[in-house]
Amino acid sequence: MNKRLISYILGWVLVIEGLCMQLSTIVGLIYGEKSFLYFLVIGLSLIVIGALFVIKKPKNHTMHLKDGFASTSLSWIVLSLAGALPLYFSGTIENFVDAFFETVSGFTTTGATIITDIEALDRCMLFWRSFSHFLGGMGVVVFLLALIPKLGGNQSINLMKAESTGPSVGKSMPKLRTYAALLYSIYIGLAAIEFVLLLFGGMSVFDALTTAFSTAGTGGFSTYNASMGHFDSYYLQTVVAVFMMLFGINFYVYILILTGKIKQLLKMEEMWIYLSMIVLSTVAIAVNLLSYYDTFRESIHQSFFYVTSIQSSTGFAITDTNPWPEFSKILIIILTCVGACAGSTGGGFKVARVIILFKEIKKEFMLFVHPRNIYTVKTDGKKVSHEVTRNVSVYLTLYILIILVTTALISFNGFDFTTNFTSVLATLNNTGPGFSMVGSAGNYAQFSIFSKLVFCFNMLAGRLELYPLVLILIPSSWKKN
Amino acid sequence: MNKRLISYILGWVLVIEGLCMQLSTIVGLIYGEKSFLYFLVIGLSLIVIGALFVIKKPKNHTMHLKDGFASTSLSWIVLSLAGALPLYFSGTIENFVDAFFETVSGFTTTGATIITDIEALDRCMLFWRSFSHFLGGMGVVVFLLALIPKLGGNQSINLMKAESTGPSVGKSMPKLRTYAALLYSIYIGLAAIEFVLLLFGGMSVFDALTTAFSTAGTGGFSTYNASMGHFDSYYLQTVVAVFMMLFGINFYVYILILTGKIKQLLKMEEMWIYLSMIVLSTVAIAVNLLSYYDTFRESIHQSFFYVTSIQSSTGFAITDTNPWPEFSKILIIILTCVGACAGSTGGGFKVARVIILFKEIKKEFMLFVHPRNIYTVKTDGKKVSHEVTRNVSVYLTLYILIILVTTALISFNGFDFTTNFTSVLATLNNTGPGFSMVGSAGNYAQFSIFSKLVFCFNMLAGRLELYPLVLILIPSSWKKN
Repeated sequence: MNKRLISYILGWVLVIEGLCMQLSTIVGLIYGEKSFLYFLVIGLSLIVIGALFVIKKPKNHTMHLKDGFASTSLSWIVLSLAGALPLYFSGTIENFVDAFFETVSGFTTTGATIITDIEALDRCMLFWRSFSHFLGGMGVVVFLLALIPKLGGNQSINLMKAESTGPSVGKSMPKLRTYAALLYSIYIGLAAIEFVLLLFGGMSVFDALTTAFSTAGTGGFSTYNASMGHFDSYYLQTVVAVFMMLFGINFYVYILILTGKIKQLLKMEEMWIYLSMIVLSTVAIAVNLLSYYDTFRESIHQSFFYVTSIQSSTGFAITDTNPWPEFSKILIIILTCVGACAGSTGGGFKVARVIILFKEIKKEFMLFVHPRNIYTVKTDGKKVSHEVTRNVSVYLTLYILIILVTTALISFNGFDFTTNFTSVLATLNNTGPGFSMVGSAGNYAQFSIFSKLVFCFNMLAGRLELYPLVLILIPSSWKKN
Repeated sequence: MNKRLISYILGWVLVIEGLCMQLSTIVGLIYGEKSFLYFLVIGLSLIVIGALFVIKKPKNHTMHLKDGFASTSLSWIVLSLAGALPLYFSGTIENFVDAFFETVSGFTTTGATIITDIEALDRCMLFWRSFSHFLGGMGVVVFLLALIPKLGGNQSINLMKAESTGPSVGKSMPKLRTYAALLYSIYIGLAAIEFVLLLFGGMSVFDALTTAFSTAGTGGFSTYNASMGHFDSYYLQTVVAVFMMLFGINFYVYILILTGKIKQLLKMEEMWIYLSMIVLSTVAIAVNLLSYYDTFRESIHQSFFYVTSIQSSTGFAITDTNPWPEFSKILIIILTCVGACAGSTGGGFKVARVIILFKEIKKEFMLFVHPRNIYTVKTDGKKVSHEVTRNVSVYLTLYILIILVTTALISFNGFDFTTNFTSVLATLNNTGPGFSMVGSAGNYAQFSIFSKLVFCFNMLAGRLELYPLVLILIPSSWKKN
């Protein structure tokens, strides 16, 4: 491992986080909350500590894939540890593990909370929670890539690979820095449009801003106990639903739209399947809910909101879905696992991976019938390499393995199977709500400290797409080359 | 497809089933039950009908893999349809779908039942249920291979591939017929030893015979409502537990023992991992159960019995495990999914496949750290081909897909998630009991007709290891070459 380069990157992460905290300082000052001081002091300290590692540039810019994986994993852990400090020292959250859980949940854009009365929090704290979604959504390392020239030299793609979502990060990007900046521009632009639309619907500036942050990162932290159910407005809820859906789409789609490449856009298999899944699930659940709501319109509204919320891995809620019929719940569990598109801010297994797995099934059956033929798996008209299909298959195995092991670890709380199983799915897929005790109206306060650490592992593993986080747990990867 | 050859094989299946039914006729006569007539008449009819297809040998012996898959899948469907007739016409089971479910459950060695008062059944019916486990355990097509010379010509390995369990059937078997006969001899021999040991422990001849049949096929049908809990004897329950474990081992192990190849035996990775899993799970669950039972001995006994019962996919029970702690339940669910060894009579995903998947994970991480090296996956000291690893990966995807889709279909009953999810796992893995309503003391009577058909699909898919059954559902595989 190139430890010097890794610590350089970690230094930058601290500096950026310290700067971001000053946004909360401003919010605290605006609303006259004394707790702004925690953000000011802790933020400045982070900047100073970070600067110590950043002042001297590392001579060796070599960044192998494992260095990229390690930098990113450690960045996210450091980010969460430091981000928890204001919540902890201000006494907003009494236990440090709880504060860490909340912050991991924020940065990984999970949106699972251990806070039972959210509305009792200071606004600067609420702002920090929502802002952590915004920073985590697109990724802090991608942000660094956009900011610092020649970070990691020509191999900086290895940083991008570790933090971006999906099975394969495009290799043909000549200017990674420009690309990272473009991604961030689209991200901020889309969030700004949502912010304006929410203001237009009557939301306060604070609510519109925090909601836009949470939606953009597909996070799900709300500033109200009733989540989006607090806003009794079809318009506001629908705006949020549409934007949850949009942030779950591969951002490459927006680049194609901006550059007018409509032909290529039409070929984006993953986007079409993602949108089809949303439409079909919305209809199926709406029909299943007919006897639960007075009108079909209400049933469709409820269904569309929760389907987009879950498949995009956001986790906003407008109702308690625990009383919903079992069929709807199973569909929601499936959407939780499938998740959003690769290259989006959303979580889950990713539609792109599901497509590759389905095509591998098809290939296998073609081979049973015509054993001598040769079949290749293609997506978007391009051949998928053997490395990528193997990587996706192994991803599935690792994903299942983590679900099984962590469900067993969570079961020591003695809660019911639905709680244990769906809490694991909701954290690993960065969704937030599951069913039973962790339903859309429930929360994670009642779990043991040990369970919360297991959930933190799941949330980080899910956000970083398993491999980077698991890699740093393997001692041999830390050996010198 | 070679339809003539397929109908020839189906004819033989009917003849053999008709002959086997005469065993139940004899049991009925011994116990003076009038219902023996159903077995006599239906059995003779099957022999006559089957003979019509068998009299003339097909000229074209070509059997491609897809013909092997189709023959085997159809054999199992025909076997179950015909096997349900005595249960249905005698009025033992009023609804034909219920009778079909019970028979599929028998032949696939699942052991899930829709009968609420088992002890009310005639003995010839009970015998038929248990015998279906015995016939299904080793496989009826393997039986045909042992019986009929040159069935399917030199490509008869394709029949073996479809019906045997595990990722790869050994290619280096010069005399398939001898091998099939050897497997059946070991199978009958082991069952005979269990039978004698049970008699020795005070069981009646009828109970010992039906219990040995159910254990050998790793089925789980009992002749008592309390399953093996009816026999309040550590000795009897332990004998059954040990034999459940033994029938879950790759039968190749017994060939190695019989031929004295101890060195090769020691290299059988899958067996050692299977046995280790049983030992570790038994200890973990026993410790977890300490507060549930008076003595550690009782706790170990309960744990060992249920662990072997579940991992071997038998499904016998000596207690209601629903009140057990959640951690034990999750372990049991994991054991349900992993299942027994390849080449055994047991069900599940198979330990051999799990081993290959784990080694693929390891390989992937090795490649992250040393991208330029070349790694090969080996089991038992031999290289695993790329085709087998791909086949295993696709198997996992298809397995998960079937679990998700069928859980959604089962959910229409409106039962709880644990019932829906574990009933799907218990049928697909040919185990029998799950948790909640389908727990070790529950049964499958309360599900809708539609759900029972879904379960039948799962049981057949699980027994035939997915591919053969799914293949015959694809229309294009029926096209001429």
